[in-house]
Amino acid sequence: MLGKQSIQFLNKPYIISSGSIVGHKEAEGPMGQLFDKVGYDDMFGAQNWEDAESSLQKEALEIALSKAGLQKQELQMVFAGDLLGQSIASSFGLAGYQSPHVGLYGACSTCGLSLSMGGMAVAGAFAEKAACITSSHFASAEKEFRFPLAYGNQRPMSATWTVTGSGAFILSAQPGREVRAVMEGVTIGKIVDYGIRDSMNMGACMAPAAADTIRQSLEDFGRTPGDYDKIITGDLGKVGQKLLFDLLAEMGIDIVKQHMDCGIEIFDSEKQDTNAGGSGCGCSAVMLSAYILKKLEEGVWKRVLFVPTGALLSKTSFNEGQTIPGIAHAVILEHYVKP
Amino acid sequence: MLGKQSIQFLNKPYIISSGSIVGHKEAEGPMGQLFDKVGYDDMFGAQNWEDAESSLQKEALEIALSKAGLQKQELQMVFAGDLLGQSIASSFGLAGYQSPHVGLYGACSTCGLSLSMGGMAVAGAFAEKAACITSSHFASAEKEFRFPLAYGNQRPMSATWTVTGSGAFILSAQPGREVRAVMEGVTIGKIVDYGIRDSMNMGACMAPAAADTIRQSLEDFGRTPGDYDKIITGDLGKVGQKLLFDLLAEMGIDIVKQHMDCGIEIFDSEKQDTNAGGSGCGCSAVMLSAYILKKLEEGVWKRVLFVPTGALLSKTSFNEGQTIPGIAHAVILEHYVKP
Repeated sequence: MLGKQSIQFLNKPYIISSGSIVGHKEAEGPMGQLFDKVGYDDMFGAQNWEDAESSLQKEALEIALSKAGLQKQELQMVFAGDLLGQSIASSFGLAGYQSPHVGLYGACSTCGLSLSMGGMAVAGAFAEKAACITSSHFASAEKEFRFPLAYGNQRPMSATWTVTGSGAFILSAQPGREVRAVMEGVTIGKIVDYGIRDSMNMGACMAPAAADTIRQSLEDFGRTPGDYDKIITGDLGKVGQKLLFDLLAEMGIDIVKQHMDCGIEIFDSEKQDTNAGGSGCGCSAVMLSAYILKKLEEGVWKRVLFVPTGALLSKTSFNEGQTIPGIAHAVILEHYVKP
Repeated sequence: MLGKQSIQFLNKPYIISSGSIVGHKEAEGPMGQLFDKVGYDDMFGAQNWEDAESSLQKEALEIALSKAGLQKQELQMVFAGDLLGQSIASSFGLAGYQSPHVGLYGACSTCGLSLSMGGMAVAGAFAEKAACITSSHFASAEKEFRFPLAYGNQRPMSATWTVTGSGAFILSAQPGREVRAVMEGVTIGKIVDYGIRDSMNMGACMAPAAADTIRQSLEDFGRTPGDYDKIITGDLGKVGQKLLFDLLAEMGIDIVKQHMDCGIEIFDSEKQDTNAGGSGCGCSAVMLSAYILKKLEEGVWKRVLFVPTGALLSKTSFNEGQTIPGIAHAVILEHYVKP
């Protein structure tokens, strides 16, 4: 353990491959050309939204495996999670792979959590190759957390739009035929509860957790924001981003120059009517696969702090008047220089 | 990785402490005297069942910490999960500990999953001390998976009774003032789907996964059932146990002499009207803390294969006609001999 919450890997895991698949709305956004696969019918050939989300995970992992030239039997562990109750998108999506399966739950921070646990498994020599997969689907998430789509509810400007998509990543103890990035370390987040109860303003629920994890990661690694080319949060959206800047400013930390939020970048919110931005496990995962790893691979960015953010609520806890705590897990990714 | 799905730890983590808390029905069962704490009102001072379950996790961890003479600040990672949608029992129960938090989902196998991940973290020198906590609550589980209690539904004989309880375990890289057991290794389970769709017969859903993990673990470690004093499943109940024996017999493996099921032992099913037995994340967790670790500590048992079993369903997937796949994670626990 480095400092209070971080791990700096001695044997740095390599991200040797990744895959992304999205729905039609994501394909129409500014990042549309970068994703590996697009389903223009958001049912993806399934009978219901949950099953559609399972198909996303299945396909994202297939893409990642095929790019790495690997067979599914070569995966020694799979780390996966999603937003649905009892993580059914992962269970039903990945059962066919017949790999040792680690189910994770970190709400929309799950991409960071899966990379952290997968990184530990590979860096600790417990697995030679591991896969990390997360997903979300607009329709299954609305049904799970808010109202059935058929109600036609109005969305406030602070609301985000859950990304339909899945991202899969192959971690390896050795470089593959390609290396997309190197994992230097991780910072495991705490649950941070500012007492917010508005499920239509997830950015505000998650910003305190993002601020806490970013501050702690900088402290644990003895760094300043300037040591990173980008500090990238998952799905704070515009409201959450403003709060993040304010909270960090109170701690004397300024990340305005380095900050990017996957939720803000994935949609053109004015043209696409997505209000505060995109959200969901799939948001940071597909942006990592399609955009962030591309920049790291090309060397445009040398070192990035990737911080997926999650809001820990359920329909039950929300209806019982509970608060919505947040959590954020940070992963430090570096450009790979061939030896 | 040892064999296909297992890890044998080079630096074996120590379970230096544990805590268990149960409800009144569990206290009236044959193991009643062994649990650390009993809540005779199953609301545990909370306003609703979910909150009551959160209290269970909070208290179980408090007991485990206090037995080990540790402060919460000394925990470097917490691995936790439960059965509720979005794992709210864990999020709200453990937020106050302010530890780096890893949310897990493995249905009723989560106790095995949390020990596997916690074991990796400690054995890999990523954390010096980690906690693993799981819980279940009869009333919150019935509401989450089947029918509200107020409906007064009839229960078939294949149904199990979800245990109200939580077990917490402190893993350490070094022996503490006590050592309850040593973790030799783990076998991470695959998702196994035999196409069963009956949510009132969870034993049948989980038995194929238990058989698969037990077979694989024996193969990976090059052992026979006789190398273990006990092979202990989580919550198969009487129906699941019979299926497990049959499935293993087809593979030429006979564990009848070594087998014990936490779900069968925790209640007196005839007197307590619990049909096939106890179930839930809490079932194997409180039995491990109160009974299994006691036997290992006393040296009555030298080596045990502990295999919590989970059924991967949600109300949504069940209502959509999906199957109920199972998963089981195995942990090898050994008696500690002072050097």
